[in-house]
Amino acid sequence: MDAFRDRVGGLAFGGDYNPEQWEPSVWREDVRLMREAGVNTVSLGVFAWASLEPEPGTYTFGWLDDVMDLLHEHGISVNLATPTAAPPVWLTHLHPEVFPIMADGEPFGFGNRLHYDPSSPIYREYAARITTRLAERYSFHPALAMWHISNEYGPTAYNEAASAGFRRWLRRRYGDLDTLNDAWTTRFWGQVYTDWEQIEVPSIPRTWMNPARKLDFKRFTSDALLECYLAERDIVRSFRDDVPVMTNFMRFFRHADYWRWAPEEDAVALDIYPDPAEDDSHVSAAFNYDLFRSLKGGQPWMLMEQASSAVCQWRLNVVKEPGRMRLGSLQAVSRASDSVMFFQWRAGRGGHERFHSAMVPHSGPGSRTFKEIAGLGRELRLLAPVAGTTSRAQIAVLFDWDGWWGLEETHGLPRSDFSYTGTVMRHYTPLWERHHAVDVVAAGSSPDGYDGYKVLVVPNAYLIGDEGAERIRAFARDGGTVVMSFFSGVVDDCNRVRPDGYPGAFRELIGARIDEYWPARPHESFTVEFTDGRRATSTWWRDDLHLESGTALATYADGLLEGRAAVVENRYGAGRVVYVATLLEQAALDAVVLEAVESAGVRSRFEGVPAHVECSVRGDEAYEYVFLLNHSGELGASVPLEGPGTDLLTGTPVPGRVELGPLGAAVVQRPLR
Amino acid sequence: MDAFRDRVGGLAFGGDYNPEQWEPSVWREDVRLMREAGVNTVSLGVFAWASLEPEPGTYTFGWLDDVMDLLHEHGISVNLATPTAAPPVWLTHLHPEVFPIMADGEPFGFGNRLHYDPSSPIYREYAARITTRLAERYSFHPALAMWHISNEYGPTAYNEAASAGFRRWLRRRYGDLDTLNDAWTTRFWGQVYTDWEQIEVPSIPRTWMNPARKLDFKRFTSDALLECYLAERDIVRSFRDDVPVMTNFMRFFRHADYWRWAPEEDAVALDIYPDPAEDDSHVSAAFNYDLFRSLKGGQPWMLMEQASSAVCQWRLNVVKEPGRMRLGSLQAVSRASDSVMFFQWRAGRGGHERFHSAMVPHSGPGSRTFKEIAGLGRELRLLAPVAGTTSRAQIAVLFDWDGWWGLEETHGLPRSDFSYTGTVMRHYTPLWERHHAVDVVAAGSSPDGYDGYKVLVVPNAYLIGDEGAERIRAFARDGGTVVMSFFSGVVDDCNRVRPDGYPGAFRELIGARIDEYWPARPHESFTVEFTDGRRATSTWWRDDLHLESGTALATYADGLLEGRAAVVENRYGAGRVVYVATLLEQAALDAVVLEAVESAGVRSRFEGVPAHVECSVRGDEAYEYVFLLNHSGELGASVPLEGPGTDLLTGTPVPGRVELGPLGAAVVQRPLR
Amino acid sequence: MDAFRDRVGGLAFGGDYNPEQWEPSVWREDVRLMREAGVNTVSLGVFAWASLEPEPGTYTFGWLDDVMDLLHEHGISVNLATPTAAPPVWLTHLHPEVFPIMADGEPFGFGNRLHYDPSSPIYREYAARITTRLAERYSFHPALAMWHISNEYGPTAYNEAASAGFRRWLRRRYGDLDTLNDAWTTRFWGQVYTDWEQIEVPSIPRTWMNPARKLDFKRFTSDALLECYLAERDIVRSFRDDVPVMTNFMRFFRHADYWRWAPEEDAVALDIYPDPAEDDSHVSAAFNYDLFRSLKGGQPWMLMEQASSAVCQWRLNVVKEPGRMRLGSLQAVSRASDSVMFFQWRAGRGGHERFHSAMVPHSGPGSRTFKEIAGLGRELRLLAPVAGTTSRAQIAVLFDWDGWWGLEETHGLPRSDFSYTGTVMRHYTPLWERHHAVDVVAAGSSPDGYDGYKVLVVPNAYLIGDEGAERIRAFARDGGTVVMSFFSGVVDDCNRVRPDGYPGAFRELIGARIDEYWPARPHESFTVEFTDGRRATSTWWRDDLHLESGTALATYADGLLEGRAAVVENRYGAGRVVYVATLLEQAALDAVVLEAVESAGVRSRFEGVPAHVECSVRGDEAYEYVFLLNHSGELGASVPLEGPGTDLLTGTPVPGRVELGPLGAAVVQRPLR
Repeated sequence: MDAFRDRVGGLAFGGDYNPEQWEPSVWREDVRLMREAGVNTVSLGVFAWASLEPEPGTYTFGWLDDVMDLLHEHGISVNLATPTAAPPVWLTHLHPEVFPIMADGEPFGFGNRLHYDPSSPIYREYAARITTRLAERYSFHPALAMWHISNEYGPTAYNEAASAGFRRWLRRRYGDLDTLNDAWTTRFWGQVYTDWEQIEVPSIPRTWMNPARKLDFKRFTSDALLECYLAERDIVRSFRDDVPVMTNFMRFFRHADYWRWAPEEDAVALDIYPDPAEDDSHVSAAFNYDLFRSLKGGQPWMLMEQASSAVCQWRLNVVKEPGRMRLGSLQAVSRASDSVMFFQWRAGRGGHERFHSAMVPHSGPGSRTFKEIAGLGRELRLLAPVAGTTSRAQIAVLFDWDGWWGLEETHGLPRSDFSYTGTVMRHYTPLWERHHAVDVVAAGSSPDGYDGYKVLVVPNAYLIGDEGAERIRAFARDGGTVVMSFFSGVVDDCNRVRPDGYPGAFRELIGARIDEYWPARPHESFTVEFTDGRRATSTWWRDDLHLESGTALATYADGLLEGRAAVVENRYGAGRVVYVATLLEQAALDAVVLEAVESAGVRSRFEGVPAHVECSVRGDEAYEYVFLLNHSGELGASVPLEGPGTDLLTGTPVPGRVELGPLGAAVVQRPLR
Repeated sequence: MDAFRDRVGGLAFGGDYNPEQWEPSVWREDVRLMREAGVNTVSLGVFAWASLEPEPGTYTFGWLDDVMDLLHEHGISVNLATPTAAPPVWLTHLHPEVFPIMADGEPFGFGNRLHYDPSSPIYREYAARITTRLAERYSFHPALAMWHISNEYGPTAYNEAASAGFRRWLRRRYGDLDTLNDAWTTRFWGQVYTDWEQIEVPSIPRTWMNPARKLDFKRFTSDALLECYLAERDIVRSFRDDVPVMTNFMRFFRHADYWRWAPEEDAVALDIYPDPAEDDSHVSAAFNYDLFRSLKGGQPWMLMEQASSAVCQWRLNVVKEPGRMRLGSLQAVSRASDSVMFFQWRAGRGGHERFHSAMVPHSGPGSRTFKEIAGLGRELRLLAPVAGTTSRAQIAVLFDWDGWWGLEETHGLPRSDFSYTGTVMRHYTPLWERHHAVDVVAAGSSPDGYDGYKVLVVPNAYLIGDEGAERIRAFARDGGTVVMSFFSGVVDDCNRVRPDGYPGAFRELIGARIDEYWPARPHESFTVEFTDGRRATSTWWRDDLHLESGTALATYADGLLEGRAAVVENRYGAGRVVYVATLLEQAALDAVVLEAVESAGVRSRFEGVPAHVECSVRGDEAYEYVFLLNHSGELGASVPLEGPGTDLLTGTPVPGRVELGPLGAAVVQRPLR
Repeated sequence: MDAFRDRVGGLAFGGDYNPEQWEPSVWREDVRLMREAGVNTVSLGVFAWASLEPEPGTYTFGWLDDVMDLLHEHGISVNLATPTAAPPVWLTHLHPEVFPIMADGEPFGFGNRLHYDPSSPIYREYAARITTRLAERYSFHPALAMWHISNEYGPTAYNEAASAGFRRWLRRRYGDLDTLNDAWTTRFWGQVYTDWEQIEVPSIPRTWMNPARKLDFKRFTSDALLECYLAERDIVRSFRDDVPVMTNFMRFFRHADYWRWAPEEDAVALDIYPDPAEDDSHVSAAFNYDLFRSLKGGQPWMLMEQASSAVCQWRLNVVKEPGRMRLGSLQAVSRASDSVMFFQWRAGRGGHERFHSAMVPHSGPGSRTFKEIAGLGRELRLLAPVAGTTSRAQIAVLFDWDGWWGLEETHGLPRSDFSYTGTVMRHYTPLWERHHAVDVVAAGSSPDGYDGYKVLVVPNAYLIGDEGAERIRAFARDGGTVVMSFFSGVVDDCNRVRPDGYPGAFRELIGARIDEYWPARPHESFTVEFTDGRRATSTWWRDDLHLESGTALATYADGLLEGRAAVVENRYGAGRVVYVATLLEQAALDAVVLEAVESAGVRSRFEGVPAHVECSVRGDEAYEYVFLLNHSGELGASVPLEGPGTDLLTGTPVPGRVELGPLGAAVVQRPLR
């Protein structure tokens, strides 16, 4: 990736380029406008399979040769895609069994994209063939800067081939049927398997499905998709192994466990479309940026797709108001993206995404959007020094796909309306609002434990394996502070309730046992009183909690659990645990989280800066880069710095304070001693 | 149709008659009651296939002979149906492939009606056979007055046969695959077709479908149904071509482009069930009456089915309160219906529609409903002179199925909750409330342009072909006034965004370019200030509009578009264009529309008459007939006339003013100089 | 059943026991805890098929032998289940056609339970085989006290085999096709059948289905399930006929007509899970207890499954707060249950129901729940004298599956949002609140008429056969009081509107004819004035009613029906009929029902006791047992008795009055002279 960074001279800027939709005369206008806008990188050929292999085994690479040459002539690097996200119609016409069978029992059909069963051997064979041809032809083309393997891996399929793959996957995981039957608790409801062939994907998933089987099917689907990626990656690497290879991930995407994918990528790349109609979509964007940066241990990542303005796939597609696209782009860079890229370069005239905004919209280069794009291009060139720099955090938030699937993909919980991303955001938001740097960590698969962090936040970790649970306990034992919320540590990684009472994995950690989980009725609320007399409201959930070694930080002041603990503090080894046993109103949860952080000795550099100004820092040994981004469209802000620096966006010296207008931004370069 | 009118002696009155459900003894009671009620026409045999051909090739016409004879003896004319809307169970049992495959991928199955794929050659063959037999037997029966081809053509099917038909249709439309690929923009997402056989109907329509393919599938389905109609029509015409032939259309029916159907009908016939639970269902009924009258250039049409009181197919089926059925019937006549007919004559005891009200309801001839029916029959006889007369309008409203499908049947718009009929009604309502006569016109298929109109109203014409767009421009250029609302002229008839910026087709017409479409967030509203200082609220949508030759009639007084135009006036050739770039609150839209009408020199004859009294006029060279219908159940009204006349309902002379009680009606015949 | 009662020494206490989920070491802990809790009965082997027949024809009874022996050693009786509710995976893998095809046209698939088409001959064959083997082996085992045939019979299937079964069922019912065609009114919409093979189950039920066909399909499905039960019952009886046989019914279960099932059971057994989140779920529980007691003519029934605390199958699963499980258990006993049993004994670690509360929950014997269970066990032993006693009522409420299906399973009614159980509960609630003893009666299948009752309540009996209608009329004619609500007596048992006007079956009974049914619009309400001047509001529905022999008890004071009757009184023979023609607000309906009861000379023994204290009486010749159950968690109550007695729960004498704290209970034994 260092070579790639050097090649583009800092931050990558550009977008998906689909020249096969246009006449060559448009291509020449394209490269002219790309130069004008400062574009240095494009993702090319993402949906070009049909244009490259119009009939099975017949290839038409000429146009792509021309485009590669043209881009190279104009100094634009190419992130070349294997086009396997959109199999040509001749493939599914010859082999309809490639269509994924959907949850409704019917095939996906032609007319969209991602219309393949990832387990299909036929799909994999054709995908390998086109990938090989592309790699043969372009591996050493001078425009090639990166490989973009397929696109937004995602389909879940319920085909026969998926069942066969699922069985192979289960054999590898469990070895024999006795182990599987035990892991899945199949004695319940008499579901004991006596032959591997009896096992199928949970097609037409009715409710009341065996929860371990559903969980393993999620894992299998993620792995089947990963296998598709690996096969293509290995092909392009077999030609040349010094070009980075990646695929593009998606924001809060539930169906692929990116912790398992990230080690196989040379760079983590993210497609993200925060909804401009939601007032706080930049906060969940920030979490995603922290997550995707963390997926590869803090290495800078790539913002691979965003929209220049509105998207078109929702019921309501609001534009990004003037200045917001720039601010959101800088936000990604502030959290260690080394690129700002868009889908797509030029708005298409037809097809489903004709109203998805583009760098060159329907209203052309005279449009507001193109002007903002060109302005952003200029600014990103000024930010070249930040490329490759990283950031540091003392706080980690646990985010785990197994835990997500446990809460949302299995039935039969005390309540079935958990939102894993919702609870994660409830815990992350106070940290974001106080400008704390945060990393995101996995449960079981994080190789190094949680060394280097002072605080670990664990939102509703219902499902956690033995290794993951022990890692959390070890962190506390060794002196860390753990903030954990209710319904954690309940089941093992087979979705089996841990024995010996709730919360099986964390009873000693939190210093309390839980007799029962008490979801609240709709409209039911409770008064919680903290030891300092503050009162707050809680709703939705109460653990029926009995203190053992722990002490109450807050108790219920009413209801049947009056006088019982609602928030618990426990000393565990050298560490401290704060356990929140109910759904506190947001302000009260904020206070609990921030008190724990402060007690752990973690201080925000930007204490006192209003929440609407996002503050973050990247740096290397020589410099730090302080990003100050004012998300308010109405309010300005005056932000003190720890010392003088230079605003890279203006090139002007900054004394100890930065003044920001509405939607204003500054990137202050400061030398480190 | 003139012969038919003479035969029934003016207006047709009657309903669907299904004697096969009853014993012959009931038939005799039926004709007695028909005479009592003044019935002169029945639609016969609509669902009688199973009773006419109980086994393949075995016919039992005897009962139908008897019924035809009996009706003829009693002077009742027969609109004889081909029974092909309800194939017998033996047909689908022998040929299950006739069942339409529904959007969920499953066959429709037996137990309802319209259970056929219109593309099925098997269905078409059996339908032709029974049609031929009927025509052989009854073409010259003296009771025969009209042919009623099938019933409420409607099914959309996703069968193999539909795919084959779709391919044939596409070949005819596009000739070769290159043209199709270009029209459908298949280069996007790599959907290029290389063999006709690769094209299928968009079965299991997932969202994100290619929007041109979906659009063509709508067109194809309408045409496939039309082919079924034409085949049967041509059979009955081959026996005798002096009997009118029609099929019954439906109110606001999205799945058949009636502009393409109407030229093939001898009379346009409408089935309409305005919901008595909706306070303004008579306004949308009025629009439909204007539409169906306009479908054949103003020729009187036939109200073929309505309910005497409640229907039974909705979740809530409210009765028509006393007097409302009569008023609604007169409303249809006032807007040029030459018939008042019902589904059905006698309420059935069983089957799905047992609670659908009938002319003879379950409570029999002593019921409120039968009394009202008989009263209506008497009144309609008094209205015989109006039969065959027509009406004139200076205002036209554009209503176009392509435009409808563009807005509602394709995904990926800036917002996907457009209601085409909703926006049409928003524009029609002020005209209706001020008693303006209105015609409805098509976009591309209207043969004569818009000659004779002074004002053309164009609600949200997102999708419009080149010819349609030019027709609108020509109308304005030649001196007409165009009122057009936002998101018009955006895509061509292949659902491709027109090049060179929004609104491609109408930029010069409206004198402004649009940089972006800005749908509003929920609960977001804007203040719009008109040049005369009036203020109004708008919501839902704003064009980001930049004036060119146009001038602002209203500007935003707040929001990010403050000071920018919300309503535009433009001089275009000899004409005037008023363009509404946001969703104005209804009263403000009313004012815009009515100002444009008034400026164009169009005056309502009934200015000052309250909105609850519907006023309309039919006439011929000798007389005009002024219909005054008071829809209020509480208020009366006093309506001035332009001079004296005779109220046909009472037979009494009317001076220059008519007094109406609640739900009152008058039909004033006035001689023309 | 007497023998069973003697065997368990009074009331049965225990639950479903699934030892195949646990190691034998746990079994020994289980029986120890069962003894501690007072358990005397378990339901064994309900889902054990896969554990008993792991491969086709290979049996592993050893573990079950051990468990039966162990239970017997510890004095615990066994209700041994045939395990046929959960066919092993090998069965459906060999024979996928056993999977029921669901309403969406797709098979149910493996992973839940009840995954069989009841009409499948293959399923029935395998089920008979395992049943035979079980009966061979355990019929004379000393632990065996009862047979539990399968579990919660329920699936509706749309398979080919179901169609074949449906045809056989229809042939038996109708004999020939003419009769069927007439019964189904197939002349409507031309649905006439000419060959039995043309008839299929209404798969993929689209709306607008023939309502008689849908109704017969409901009847057929209930009967197909019943055939499965009978086949297994007859097998176990063939080995030994002195052990009671039952299957477990479900609360308000729409898909099986339990009036037809109950005569085939030795005891009626009920699974019930009142939702603790609903404040009045104990009232609908009370109705169900009355229903299930009435199903076998008042014979004590068995509470076969309930939850010790929360369930897990809903979106929100609230716990039973302390004391509520005990109170609910005593409530069942008060209404003639001779058992209190739970699903399940020990909470499982995995599977869908891992969070369904158990007698031994995850938190073990130290938990609140286990303590409450053990306390209940102690109390139930004290209540041994009530076992076998019965109760008496003078009021009957009609509850009929045909009527339910008529209102809820067919389309095309004046409104389609009827809730049959809702209307039943509206009529039952005032009786419950005043502590009236109530029996539940069927329409057509009740063998003895309604002798012995003074009042019969008939809520919305839309569909009722000739026999059922005559039984109601006879009851009134002979001097009974009938309270009947609107939309009753409309159709016959083929869902055909009765001729000669509404309400066909009851026009003379209520002394009025109905011209039309007038459902109300949303938000529309009416003022009803009673003859004594009281006013009330009604909504939702009005009969357009015309008095004949009846007189008005209340009339509308507004609206288009102003002055017309809303509540009618009619003398019919020696009896009195009160007919409610609109949806009265609850308090007004309460008054109408209670006035009718009082006028009929029925007095509550517990007049004046507040509604939150449920009062009921069981007894035999020697004693009566007065149950007083305070459902309020906040209020106490002081309840007078007719004389002194002994509280069995405390063993202490009770003078003429019982004091109850919140959630308090008393069971007062009083000798009868």
